[in-house]
Amino acid sequence: MSAPSISRYPVPKLEDLPEDVRARILEVQEKAGFVPNVFLALAHRPAEFRAFFAYHDALMLRDSGLTKAEREMIVVAVAGANDCLYCFVAHGAILRVYAKQPQVADQVGVNYLKADITPRQRAMLAFALKVSERSGEIVDDDHAALRAHGFTDEDIWDIGNISAFFCLSNRMANLIGLRPNDEFYLLGRVPKEKPAR
Amino acid sequence: MSAPSISRYPVPKLEDLPEDVRARILEVQEKAGFVPNVFLALAHRPAEFRAFFAYHDALMLRDSGLTKAEREMIVVAVAGANDCLYCFVAHGAILRVYAKQPQVADQVGVNYLKADITPRQRAMLAFALKVSERSGEIVDDDHAALRAHGFTDEDIWDIGNISAFFCLSNRMANLIGLRPNDEFYLLGRVPKEKPAR
Amino acid sequence: MSAPSISRYPVPKLEDLPEDVRARILEVQEKAGFVPNVFLALAHRPAEFRAFFAYHDALMLRDSGLTKAEREMIVVAVAGANDCLYCFVAHGAILRVYAKQPQVADQVGVNYLKADITPRQRAMLAFALKVSERSGEIVDDDHAALRAHGFTDEDIWDIGNISAFFCLSNRMANLIGLRPNDEFYLLGRVPKEKPAR
Amino acid sequence: MSAPSISRYPVPKLEDLPEDVRARILEVQEKAGFVPNVFLALAHRPAEFRAFFAYHDALMLRDSGLTKAEREMIVVAVAGANDCLYCFVAHGAILRVYAKQPQVADQVGVNYLKADITPRQRAMLAFALKVSERSGEIVDDDHAALRAHGFTDEDIWDIGNISAFFCLSNRMANLIGLRPNDEFYLLGRVPKEKPAR
Amino acid sequence: MSAPSISRYPVPKLEDLPEDVRARILEVQEKAGFVPNVFLALAHRPAEFRAFFAYHDALMLRDSGLTKAEREMIVVAVAGANDCLYCFVAHGAILRVYAKQPQVADQVGVNYLKADITPRQRAMLAFALKVSERSGEIVDDDHAALRAHGFTDEDIWDIGNISAFFCLSNRMANLIGLRPNDEFYLLGRVPKEKPAR
Amino acid sequence: MSAPSISRYPVPKLEDLPEDVRARILEVQEKAGFVPNVFLALAHRPAEFRAFFAYHDALMLRDSGLTKAEREMIVVAVAGANDCLYCFVAHGAILRVYAKQPQVADQVGVNYLKADITPRQRAMLAFALKVSERSGEIVDDDHAALRAHGFTDEDIWDIGNISAFFCLSNRMANLIGLRPNDEFYLLGRVPKEKPAR
Repeated sequence: MSAPSISRYPVPKLEDLPEDVRARILEVQEKAGFVPNVFLALAHRPAEFRAFFAYHDALMLRDSGLTKAEREMIVVAVAGANDCLYCFVAHGAILRVYAKQPQVADQVGVNYLKADITPRQRAMLAFALKVSERSGEIVDDDHAALRAHGFTDEDIWDIGNISAFFCLSNRMANLIGLRPNDEFYLLGRVPKEKPAR
Repeated sequence: MSAPSISRYPVPKLEDLPEDVRARILEVQEKAGFVPNVFLALAHRPAEFRAFFAYHDALMLRDSGLTKAEREMIVVAVAGANDCLYCFVAHGAILRVYAKQPQVADQVGVNYLKADITPRQRAMLAFALKVSERSGEIVDDDHAALRAHGFTDEDIWDIGNISAFFCLSNRMANLIGLRPNDEFYLLGRVPKEKPAR
Repeated sequence: MSAPSISRYPVPKLEDLPEDVRARILEVQEKAGFVPNVFLALAHRPAEFRAFFAYHDALMLRDSGLTKAEREMIVVAVAGANDCLYCFVAHGAILRVYAKQPQVADQVGVNYLKADITPRQRAMLAFALKVSERSGEIVDDDHAALRAHGFTDEDIWDIGNISAFFCLSNRMANLIGLRPNDEFYLLGRVPKEKPAR
Repeated sequence: MSAPSISRYPVPKLEDLPEDVRARILEVQEKAGFVPNVFLALAHRPAEFRAFFAYHDALMLRDSGLTKAEREMIVVAVAGANDCLYCFVAHGAILRVYAKQPQVADQVGVNYLKADITPRQRAMLAFALKVSERSGEIVDDDHAALRAHGFTDEDIWDIGNISAFFCLSNRMANLIGLRPNDEFYLLGRVPKEKPAR
Repeated sequence: MSAPSISRYPVPKLEDLPEDVRARILEVQEKAGFVPNVFLALAHRPAEFRAFFAYHDALMLRDSGLTKAEREMIVVAVAGANDCLYCFVAHGAILRVYAKQPQVADQVGVNYLKADITPRQRAMLAFALKVSERSGEIVDDDHAALRAHGFTDEDIWDIGNISAFFCLSNRMANLIGLRPNDEFYLLGRVPKEKPAR
Repeated sequence: MSAPSISRYPVPKLEDLPEDVRARILEVQEKAGFVPNVFLALAHRPAEFRAFFAYHDALMLRDSGLTKAEREMIVVAVAGANDCLYCFVAHGAILRVYAKQPQVADQVGVNYLKADITPRQRAMLAFALKVSERSGEIVDDDHAALRAHGFTDEDIWDIGNISAFFCLSNRMANLIGLRPNDEFYLLGRVPKEKPAR
């Protein structure tokens, strides 16, 4: 049986890609040991690929009051809300690796109120989900509630923008039928593994 | 009375911005006659500003089977669904200018089923709104329905990605409380005006 | 090209209408400079026309603790919630004229939480929308919350009944496919104009 | 124990009411054997009372392709959707009386898909509920579906307008906390009773 | 005319049933004067029948801080939320009988906020409906709110489990199209009647 | 650090339990290698425990046109819809083991439209989710659609009843805050493991 398709759209060959796009893909392959499908599928359109990952990196790699694990918690909770299999599975793996905790990703993705996280993190996810589901109802009091948990205004921007960015990402994954790599399902569930995007 | 704030976050002064960000802002000011607030408010974070507008331009300026007016229809319909005042008003203006039609923006933003548009455009907006509201339920039949209206696979990506990108944009606007410029409300409602972002 | 239809139902000619219905229509034409389409479309059934406008006038013209602009705010917010293009556009125009403010109608119709209105007006609209969307959940505390903003019991009745009446009106407009007059889109957006129903 | 209040608002005494309002109330009392509370509660505002019942009568008493029982089916189904106890109970009673069938009101109010009604009546109620719940989504095909069941355009107006009118009525009942008369609960459940409003 | 079917599935004859199932059915017939249709319809599968009624009895007959009428209030409120005609009608009858009050069942089933019940009972129904509609959002504070009304932890389990059990029951009734016995509609509406399942 | 609590309610000690309840628990421990928390938490009330597992076994162990893996697919899809962490994780493990496929559980739980399953299984899950989410809207056509995929009437009962039973189960898990055993998260993700309840 042939491998299942990873996208409703044509997936470019590495050698046909612009140099910078190919370099980025090889870099993640080097780090993760495989190429996450989102890189291959979005490379179908290099200009959007560049903007997408520039935005991603600006949010996920910047210095922030949020740890990398906390940022991935947001991603996984939002993926659950948006029924996005790719981000649930792929970022679930990354979250497990960053948090060095094999249960938290499923907990946060299915029901963050049941997760082994701190009250501060629960407030963070409540806000992230409000940004995802009912952003029109955000009022000053929502910002104030996060500040009461010690988040700075810049942290709040981070929480909101990560949620917003993955609302874009989840919709693209659902639009193109993006398939998670099999590797992600198991990653981080047993000790000694390393992150992939 | 002082002018109302355009964002919950600090708005940088032009002279404090990186050269490329300032250049982009001056360019839009030149073209539109004023600086749309989204440029000033997002310049608070230059890295995200660059990625945001790179993504925007990749989608909105590319050669496409969709006219520029059709792309703006998607933006306005999605803004209505997301209760995003900024995009409803600002992109409503741009849509009026591109379509050279003063009623279509309000029609599409409030209820596209009542708009003076073609059946093909109605199918386009139905799909864009499904991407915005229920992207997890998108199936092959949804793509097929658009192809039956003459849309190519690349057009469908455009429709879906524009919807997805403005789902991000709407959430950011709601997060920071982005205020539309007063100019947008009237733009394109009477003859002889020109577009702004 | 012929003019687009204003209703899914036959629109009577003025000369075929009962005297009182025709008189009412001529009166509004005199005042507004044109006949709002709702008058022509509902005249298809004179008995309901009379009751509809009697109810409308009882609510919108009575002495009230609500200004006329505030009453129109309710109408526009409810129209937005009910996806009613006619009332959004027509009453948006009336609101702009009464409020002598060109932005408030779009603000209130798209997202009242972003509007340039007072906290008292925000509480008024929150209640009006609860009457529209979830009236079965109204409890004494909702009334108390409005009284805390200085609304009397009669003001609360006004808020609720205007919301309820336009829930009827919005549904009729959607039922018959009522088309807003082109005039409404621009009315009140620049100084020195006068109201129409 | 004193009788429970029938409204959050003052209920006028019959002798304090304008002659025509009082006459209307006495007429219904004569016919039904008691005064339905909606008459007393809405008499708090005579001008609105007159418009409300004029509208009601225009819809419910006119010659129509819908039987009186069918019109009451619409009222009861819409009351169920709007969580309106008064109309569910009071119009349930009227429906039982008109239909000479003691189960149909509860069936239609709780779940019309389980009711002992004809396919034509099910189509009627599906449309009435769409007018109540999602009127912005009504398209020409919805009208066509009813015509396929033999409904005329005027019948469709009746169905839609009755639904819309009771959306107003349900919201007013919920606003003022209107209490159903105890009499309604039993009316029409055993043979030989007569209707009340 | 033949009697309408009580289920989409075959209804077994009493004589074909296992002894214990038949005995249970005869027992309820003896007590109620008729056999509620749920017994006949579920007897189609004796093993599930036994488990269903064992669960039912464990919850509804146990010693509890909730009266039998209160337990039936939960059932009727949940049936209303789940659009389950059978439980609305059948348990409405049982509630009327237990409460010796002919209005409370319709009140609780249509809108418990309008019912003649105590604040404690309103809190009980609010929780039962949260278990039915949004159980994933239950947090410790919900339990605390009930304890503030004097409910013990075991009472809270009862409230939640009765709601959960009838979520199963409502879905089964809707799955098989279970028809309420005509007797239930009138039961308990006039004095001197006795309960049935 | 002490182990996190598995329930909001007291968890009985094995030695304090009735013989049959203890025997059932020891049996599952023997088979699975550990005691799934649902057994311990529900043993708080032996009578309900017995009925719950009798119902469970009647559905999940009976001869059926559905494979055991298919039945678990229903459980996992419904758990996702009900935000039930326990059933998502525990039955996800069981599904992986039965299906001998490490990805299908996450696929079905997050978005069954993206799962590697057959069209027949997709129809099965669509129906199961309708039973869970909108059972009041089930009509004969829904049954017919399943028969068109080769399901018998008894298979349809199985699908619906499994969905309904786990709607009960999910609500109980959410009510008591039932915590999944850590073992479940990894089970079935790599070859050579065996099922647990």
